[in-house]
Amino acid sequence: MSKNLTKRSEDYSKWYNELVVKADLAENSGVRGCMVIKPYGYAIWEKMQAELDRMFKETGHQNAYFPLFIPKSYFSKEASHVDGFAKECAVVTHYRLRTAADGKTIEVDPDAKLEEELIVRPTSETIIWDTYRGWIQSYRDLPLLINQWANVVRWEMRTRLFLRTAEFLWQEGHTAHATQQEAIAEAEQMMNVYADFAENFMAIPVIKGVKTANERFAGAIETYCIEALMQDGKALQAGTSHFLGQNFAKAFDVKFATKEGVQEYVWATSWGVSTRLMGALVMTHSDDNGLVLPPNLAPIQVVIVPIYKTDEQSEAISEEAKTLMAKLKKLNISVKYDDRDTHKPGFKFNEYELKGVPVRIALGPKDLENGTFEVARRDTLTKEVVANTAIVAYIQDLLEEIQTNLYDKAKSYRDSHITEVNSFDEFKEVLEGKGGFIAAHWDGTTETEEKIKELTKATIRCIALDRKEEPGKCMLTGSPSVGRVLFAKAY
Amino acid sequence: MSKNLTKRSEDYSKWYNELVVKADLAENSGVRGCMVIKPYGYAIWEKMQAELDRMFKETGHQNAYFPLFIPKSYFSKEASHVDGFAKECAVVTHYRLRTAADGKTIEVDPDAKLEEELIVRPTSETIIWDTYRGWIQSYRDLPLLINQWANVVRWEMRTRLFLRTAEFLWQEGHTAHATQQEAIAEAEQMMNVYADFAENFMAIPVIKGVKTANERFAGAIETYCIEALMQDGKALQAGTSHFLGQNFAKAFDVKFATKEGVQEYVWATSWGVSTRLMGALVMTHSDDNGLVLPPNLAPIQVVIVPIYKTDEQSEAISEEAKTLMAKLKKLNISVKYDDRDTHKPGFKFNEYELKGVPVRIALGPKDLENGTFEVARRDTLTKEVVANTAIVAYIQDLLEEIQTNLYDKAKSYRDSHITEVNSFDEFKEVLEGKGGFIAAHWDGTTETEEKIKELTKATIRCIALDRKEEPGKCMLTGSPSVGRVLFAKAY
Repeated sequence: MSKNLTKRSEDYSKWYNELVVKADLAENSGVRGCMVIKPYGYAIWEKMQAELDRMFKETGHQNAYFPLFIPKSYFSKEASHVDGFAKECAVVTHYRLRTAADGKTIEVDPDAKLEEELIVRPTSETIIWDTYRGWIQSYRDLPLLINQWANVVRWEMRTRLFLRTAEFLWQEGHTAHATQQEAIAEAEQMMNVYADFAENFMAIPVIKGVKTANERFAGAIETYCIEALMQDGKALQAGTSHFLGQNFAKAFDVKFATKEGVQEYVWATSWGVSTRLMGALVMTHSDDNGLVLPPNLAPIQVVIVPIYKTDEQSEAISEEAKTLMAKLKKLNISVKYDDRDTHKPGFKFNEYELKGVPVRIALGPKDLENGTFEVARRDTLTKEVVANTAIVAYIQDLLEEIQTNLYDKAKSYRDSHITEVNSFDEFKEVLEGKGGFIAAHWDGTTETEEKIKELTKATIRCIALDRKEEPGKCMLTGSPSVGRVLFAKAY
Repeated sequence: MSKNLTKRSEDYSKWYNELVVKADLAENSGVRGCMVIKPYGYAIWEKMQAELDRMFKETGHQNAYFPLFIPKSYFSKEASHVDGFAKECAVVTHYRLRTAADGKTIEVDPDAKLEEELIVRPTSETIIWDTYRGWIQSYRDLPLLINQWANVVRWEMRTRLFLRTAEFLWQEGHTAHATQQEAIAEAEQMMNVYADFAENFMAIPVIKGVKTANERFAGAIETYCIEALMQDGKALQAGTSHFLGQNFAKAFDVKFATKEGVQEYVWATSWGVSTRLMGALVMTHSDDNGLVLPPNLAPIQVVIVPIYKTDEQSEAISEEAKTLMAKLKKLNISVKYDDRDTHKPGFKFNEYELKGVPVRIALGPKDLENGTFEVARRDTLTKEVVANTAIVAYIQDLLEEIQTNLYDKAKSYRDSHITEVNSFDEFKEVLEGKGGFIAAHWDGTTETEEKIKELTKATIRCIALDRKEEPGKCMLTGSPSVGRVLFAKAY
């Protein structure tokens, strides 16, 4: 198969769009802004889900499911939430269609108008806190640690596969606690779970931090986030975890009796990651030859391609391949033997490169003769000839090495793209040239933050949790600052 | 905890509604007809999902995800589909809200009206076949074997938790094949997968059959189904698998090039089961004391309740319990140790009975002295004292025995509730008295079928696949019949 993929250096954005479609991850649908996640892409998402779900359960959370629809009035209950969220939404106004006068087409039945419109959930705080009122009476009911896997809809005007779609898949955790400290600890814990997942499972290094007031989630007191850096020097918010204070408890009247019998409002968190992570995965590791998948996320970790001319050769190779497959499967390595006779080896090599399969083994008559396998790794595009006595341990080690190598490579790129600047001119120069995160002093006001965004399109990605206290002067206004924050252009 | 559960003999319907809520499976939400699936109920659903997903993948299917919204015009493309489906739907007409003149509430922005309304999917044939047109060009692309886990919405006027809700969760398989025979074989295979799942995993005996023309899925040539019988003598359709012929391929213009290079329309199937299975689970096995769960579906298979007076006793019991837990967990048995000191043992016993935990172990100072455990089984409500040297094997066997016993019990009830009748009077008598499936001759016309429904509320549940050819006369019209069909009142 010929890849015909635009080079990253030519047009990064075009490269991304093409790659997502050509590698069979997703495609646009007939419904504006909504994507179809194709089987290969969905298999990767399932691996993310399984690992996250395991991590959530290990930290004491349970799954549940809440309604897709939220009555319009619910959004007005938490004042700052409605401002931030309820505007660009899909609104259900009717509940019936009827056959039109032409007898062929269908139309909305005007008699079936809802008394109160329903919003397709853009996030579920309101409906969930309306439910929690019935679940929480006493301190014995706390903490309540719930997660939901669901689809959500935000009516985006400009959409891009995985990165920004009208409908997307995600998980949203919603927890209730007896004390402020416990809720803050939960929000921090989930940020750490996300960072652990991104780094150790997806091989994506992230910076942990908090958002500025301006970039906070609508209704949150504090938004924790993990920020990743893509290969084009733009940042991507990979996950957020919010400390919501008592805002939703007050809006939905959720109180509990303390041990001492006092009625108090409950403390809340919410946290989520979405199919956006698929976009981060593609843009962190992939190259001009196609997708590059960390072994942890690869639906096929090893592919074996036979090379033969005669039926006799094919049979002998197939036998050897099947012996190896059995050994690898025992080690929980997912392996595919591609013996399609409708395609040539060269076509298959290209296809698996495009689809990011970490390890490709070619097996021909010469290999059989010599007792060897030709092993190619996707991350470095290098090949090695390995003896069949050593192959199983070699593959096992190689998968670990690829996982580590991808992380190291991404981290080295990221680390070399955090630049300290001390003036606004320097800031603009780095932003337009090298890109990446820019560590600069800022006076702490929303006005300055917005002014910088207006002038440069850069936003404050986060105030890193590990930043050093370092007095300085705001690069734009010269006003005092207590430490640098990280700016970047972002997805 | 006191259960306060209505008895089945008093009011079966009330018993069901109360049980679903009291056992923490689900509850109604603030959104008309939409339920909240609570963590305990969702954990059971997750077990169903995991097993079904495994079975689908073992039979060669892959998961994917298609849009929640379907443009209105798509429904008009397959003529019989629109008649059967597109009427009672949630319709999205607008994509934005705005703050109302009062500055507090929000309202639909009249300027944000969609050009074409979007329907929240009631089932996904149309959007999926619109997508398949781009995926299928040649015989090499077939068969296409895809499944989707998703939420769907059908605007039901009368809703009941799990059994009939406006929004529900399900899986829908959509496959494309080169030949009619292959598609029919797929539809039959998936009916068999469902039957296997219902019987061997859920312990629910089912009858495999095909629907009459009148009861077929809108757009199907043949609808295969599995029908179960609830304890009140009413039937419940537990899963359907449809052979769709070339109807959707023609409606959405999906053709493929055969090996010989001829363009032909593709053959299709679709098949699904939903959270309705949760209702079937409750109504098949549970009793007046609460839920009864087959061990395969129980989030907690074994619960250990300590009984003690002094701290010393508590410590010794806890040690013994933890030793047992470790052994059971090694065998993949899920076990919970309930050492809450806020509740008494009697309260806990009641709670786990209500929640259907298959095996309960009580452990007190006397047991410790004697080296025994008191083991209670939920299905028979009997107790046994077991020596600690034998306990692990005993529990392992017991869980299997409970699984088998529940199936046998349900099957014996079902088998004794299939009644052959030869006149319409006899039919009405059995229907109003004993209930269950009634095997009767029918003349094969939709008119007669509808007349019987009108007169008795009974419908033809299916024409069983294993029915014997037996000429007879229709119980209503006296016209000739080739074999008996199964009638019942149904959920």
